[in-house]
Amino acid sequence: MSKRARDYSLVCGSLPPGPLNAITDVAGVTVGHCTIREADIRTGFTAVLPHPGDVFREKVRAGVEVINGFGKSAGLMQLAELGQIETPILLGNTFSVAAGIEALVGRTLANNPEIGRSTGTVNSLVLECNDGFLSDIRARRLTVADAEAALDAASGGSVEEGAVGAGTGMSGFGFKGGIGTASRLIALDGRSFTVGVLVQANFGNAGDLVLPDGRRPVPPAASPVQPPERGSVIIILATDLPLESRQLTRIARRCGAGLARLGAFWGNGSGDIAIAFSTAGRIGHFDEADLVPLTVLNENRIDLPFRAAAEATQEAVLNAMLAAPETIGRDGNRRPSLADWL
Amino acid sequence: MSKRARDYSLVCGSLPPGPLNAITDVAGVTVGHCTIREADIRTGFTAVLPHPGDVFREKVRAGVEVINGFGKSAGLMQLAELGQIETPILLGNTFSVAAGIEALVGRTLANNPEIGRSTGTVNSLVLECNDGFLSDIRARRLTVADAEAALDAASGGSVEEGAVGAGTGMSGFGFKGGIGTASRLIALDGRSFTVGVLVQANFGNAGDLVLPDGRRPVPPAASPVQPPERGSVIIILATDLPLESRQLTRIARRCGAGLARLGAFWGNGSGDIAIAFSTAGRIGHFDEADLVPLTVLNENRIDLPFRAAAEATQEAVLNAMLAAPETIGRDGNRRPSLADWL
Amino acid sequence: MSKRARDYSLVCGSLPPGPLNAITDVAGVTVGHCTIREADIRTGFTAVLPHPGDVFREKVRAGVEVINGFGKSAGLMQLAELGQIETPILLGNTFSVAAGIEALVGRTLANNPEIGRSTGTVNSLVLECNDGFLSDIRARRLTVADAEAALDAASGGSVEEGAVGAGTGMSGFGFKGGIGTASRLIALDGRSFTVGVLVQANFGNAGDLVLPDGRRPVPPAASPVQPPERGSVIIILATDLPLESRQLTRIARRCGAGLARLGAFWGNGSGDIAIAFSTAGRIGHFDEADLVPLTVLNENRIDLPFRAAAEATQEAVLNAMLAAPETIGRDGNRRPSLADWL
Amino acid sequence: MSKRARDYSLVCGSLPPGPLNAITDVAGVTVGHCTIREADIRTGFTAVLPHPGDVFREKVRAGVEVINGFGKSAGLMQLAELGQIETPILLGNTFSVAAGIEALVGRTLANNPEIGRSTGTVNSLVLECNDGFLSDIRARRLTVADAEAALDAASGGSVEEGAVGAGTGMSGFGFKGGIGTASRLIALDGRSFTVGVLVQANFGNAGDLVLPDGRRPVPPAASPVQPPERGSVIIILATDLPLESRQLTRIARRCGAGLARLGAFWGNGSGDIAIAFSTAGRIGHFDEADLVPLTVLNENRIDLPFRAAAEATQEAVLNAMLAAPETIGRDGNRRPSLADWL
Repeated sequence: MSKRARDYSLVCGSLPPGPLNAITDVAGVTVGHCTIREADIRTGFTAVLPHPGDVFREKVRAGVEVINGFGKSAGLMQLAELGQIETPILLGNTFSVAAGIEALVGRTLANNPEIGRSTGTVNSLVLECNDGFLSDIRARRLTVADAEAALDAASGGSVEEGAVGAGTGMSGFGFKGGIGTASRLIALDGRSFTVGVLVQANFGNAGDLVLPDGRRPVPPAASPVQPPERGSVIIILATDLPLESRQLTRIARRCGAGLARLGAFWGNGSGDIAIAFSTAGRIGHFDEADLVPLTVLNENRIDLPFRAAAEATQEAVLNAMLAAPETIGRDGNRRPSLADWL
Repeated sequence: MSKRARDYSLVCGSLPPGPLNAITDVAGVTVGHCTIREADIRTGFTAVLPHPGDVFREKVRAGVEVINGFGKSAGLMQLAELGQIETPILLGNTFSVAAGIEALVGRTLANNPEIGRSTGTVNSLVLECNDGFLSDIRARRLTVADAEAALDAASGGSVEEGAVGAGTGMSGFGFKGGIGTASRLIALDGRSFTVGVLVQANFGNAGDLVLPDGRRPVPPAASPVQPPERGSVIIILATDLPLESRQLTRIARRCGAGLARLGAFWGNGSGDIAIAFSTAGRIGHFDEADLVPLTVLNENRIDLPFRAAAEATQEAVLNAMLAAPETIGRDGNRRPSLADWL
Repeated sequence: MSKRARDYSLVCGSLPPGPLNAITDVAGVTVGHCTIREADIRTGFTAVLPHPGDVFREKVRAGVEVINGFGKSAGLMQLAELGQIETPILLGNTFSVAAGIEALVGRTLANNPEIGRSTGTVNSLVLECNDGFLSDIRARRLTVADAEAALDAASGGSVEEGAVGAGTGMSGFGFKGGIGTASRLIALDGRSFTVGVLVQANFGNAGDLVLPDGRRPVPPAASPVQPPERGSVIIILATDLPLESRQLTRIARRCGAGLARLGAFWGNGSGDIAIAFSTAGRIGHFDEADLVPLTVLNENRIDLPFRAAAEATQEAVLNAMLAAPETIGRDGNRRPSLADWL
Repeated sequence: MSKRARDYSLVCGSLPPGPLNAITDVAGVTVGHCTIREADIRTGFTAVLPHPGDVFREKVRAGVEVINGFGKSAGLMQLAELGQIETPILLGNTFSVAAGIEALVGRTLANNPEIGRSTGTVNSLVLECNDGFLSDIRARRLTVADAEAALDAASGGSVEEGAVGAGTGMSGFGFKGGIGTASRLIALDGRSFTVGVLVQANFGNAGDLVLPDGRRPVPPAASPVQPPERGSVIIILATDLPLESRQLTRIARRCGAGLARLGAFWGNGSGDIAIAFSTAGRIGHFDEADLVPLTVLNENRIDLPFRAAAEATQEAVLNAMLAAPETIGRDGNRRPSLADWL
């Protein structure tokens, strides 16, 4: 396993990480990758499953923050309206959203014969970044089977980071980007709760990156003229802390602070989206009760998950970049590795 | 007591009203008026108190829908962020917002010596409409004492409607507007809950009003040229149904449907604001627990309060107009009564 | 051609309609349908093209109002952020969003070799309603070729309404729904401008419909127990009036007033979305100038397009329902025709 | 004049500052202070005037970003709806909002006899932070005359920074906060434009501050237990770049990135608000034309003002803190100076 930010003494903030320093520190959350490297293609899917059950039948409370809305993600409108997620989350590239939807709809239909008959439809959640610099995105290579492979690969434990799954073709601050993760532990009412973050990091102009120690890595080949950013970053935050969806939305917003601490200003062409969900307080699709009990956070304590969200996002991006090796992709386009710079 | 919409067989929708067909059907909610009629002044304050206790110490969950944001109301930003209300609600005219804030801040400081010392400040909630057609609004007549008088006058039971309190100088669809109220009963999990609405109705172009029976009252003096609307409407919805603030926000939105059924299109110059709060699930300012229990509505049942919000809003506006007599105000400006038309 | 609302003396509001009383009264706007009726399938695509050119290269300014966000439409986030539309608009059913995206991406890639090479990607705009009551939506029958067929069929002139294209399987207020359109003329600065609306009407509980004359049509087979609404309504508003995207967003919001006047309250399970675009002030994708001239509406005049939006939406829904004949679909499910009731 | 961030070699970002490195580098923008220091009072007003004329008659296009809505500012709702500002901007403390409104309403009424007669009312813009740690905020010391004094003191040229005007009682990251300013120059279409920022900095937990060189100043007296933040930060961004209000809203959002780069995560109790306005493309209140010409920025160039907004905000906060001397206030509460730490 490659070295992570903390192995370079790059520590983001003050809260302690969980045992794996990964989104999978949140009990029940699993991650799977499907990676495609062939000819001019560097792409893939990454799946995040909120819990081991059927997410349609047992939905999770959630919130979304559109940090910058230059993006093509699917499923965010209903998430915002209802404050809930009802499928696994897929991350892919910009032109794989349709394949991702098809995979999620297909799986959900197969498991739920009531859909389209005695109950409604399903809201698929597929997020994306543009990997067109390193990969031939025009080829539209990603398929429904690839999305299913990422879903099927989901497991707990350590998360593979860097140029893997949906991170395969990512770039960040002129370096190679990718998938990264981190977590934080917070104590409330005498119990320990976990905030875990997984990012698909594909954002930031060359020269803008600032490390937690103040160093400013500039990729060796960075041209003096900075092209407009065409990246994006997707942030998935999971927690076992019981929360209202309004609180999850506020927490998701703080992921943007983690990006800014790295030197980003949420560029025009970057689709920067943060989703936060809680594994507590699930919502049964077929629940018959009119009134349902819920536990929520005392709003006066919310600074703790706010801080965790900012710290874990910042560190997850560094983990993504550090795990990604130098990559040469489409038409010889090249992204150096931040690990090599360090 | 003047006749109300149902006395004219004008019934909005299908749900049954509460015993008073008023916001005070929601247990604990009280309403008070301070009315000023003198020379060229037709104005006043109306207070809505969510419960008999100190609202700062025991806040209520709430949501807000800005149907059209051409308005000067105070306190909505924090309400939206935190999903809670921590003062009584004052309705006044556009230039009385400062007096209303002073009254609420003064009362809250007097009752809470911790403010500005060991705890933070307080978010006053003051909403307004422009009564400049019937009243000399430039005189800035309303004072802190007037606001306090409305707060002190708050009581349960029947609500005085029409040209009273903050409704004294209001206009609607070319007729006299004012304060109106209505309520609806809904059954969930075998219990009965109440949705109550109080409106400050000051909106609508002459000729646009549509009654529930399809008739279209045109005020006798309506000129063929319609001046741009400079009105507004404030809608306060109270319920004893336990709800998340996100759900309250969704319910507040449906008050706008009630306005549209009357023929409104939420004109540019009209500040149309709906606030919804629940008397259930209160939030203790000094609550020490990190995690707090809450009961919320199963989202699949939310059509019931949606329908109640639209119906009660529509009927509250009609009640406001029907209770208001013909009024001659500033510079001889005159608004006929809808009751006279009927 | 079937009779329309005005043929039944059902007139919505006071502004005059355009020559066709259709969205195609806006110069350059075209509409195409692809209709699928076979066995248990009643479905299709409808395409709205903002202008005859390549919409990616020549984008139109736009705004979106999410009246109720229970829906799976694609492309709205970027529309809201940038205030622009860069593909034709496709309407389909809930499980056809992926096929619609693929069709729009495919067409746009074919016409723009710069995408994924020297320029970014493309934001497809696909909206949807659930036609599962009349059609076997689980079959996922709609294909990329069907979407392309709707795009290829686009033409100006009269618009086919009712059970056609994306309207084939729609329901409304317990009756058969479908595609409908209407328009309004407004005069500004001595010129005439057009506001056109096209709706995919699939919303409203049986018994809630109110006609402009006050009548309340109840479908003959309406059961006394009202099932929760699982419909939706998509509203596309086009105009040749020059507007900022913020103004277009405000105008889109007023389409919701048109729905409410019909008796709707924007039910929980209904994805009610309004998009508004202007054919004036187009945005060149490859425009080199840093500063660009624009003409916008004096905000004090915006009540005129507000009123047009509400009126045309209301009338377009009635036109949709009146053009749709009684339909028997999946498993013998049946929707009577409003025209038969009248 | 005290030393500023650049005098300590603390440089935020890469864009060049204007001649004064102040919001007053934007032609026509002026700033005035009214400072109150007496007994247990450390407070004041600061005024920002967008141009030398009557802002009601000649409004400026604007946008607002509510970074965190725990605040009591007045006037933001209408700003967001109409995309315009129609009074000078006042900054004060939390309980001075009413006095600020009264001052702005009074001035605007005096200058515009049409208000409340032949035209509508006026939307006052008053923003605030809580200075209760250093000042006896319960005394409600600030008056209408104090607000008027700040308005009357407005001038161009260098801006007094630190513990002055609305900055008198501010705190930041456990140090003394205050008023600060900075600016950036950007080149577009061969012309130079200015982005200027003024902040009222009252936010950040002790120990969280990060300087641009990576150092982390901890105030000497910082206790190991961090109390919850009860601060806030108000950011006013001015520019002479011609922009739509939607673009100004996007730019305002990037001020939040500047805060995060300093180590903030937009704490729960902090009302973090950014307002952006352009002095170009003014809106005449009595403009008779229905359609008005406007120049706007090519959206593809917006990264430049984005970057300027983040950089100038970050630097303005440092300038605020560095200009503020150690201050002992209410009940002996003390804030050390960041300049002393350096």
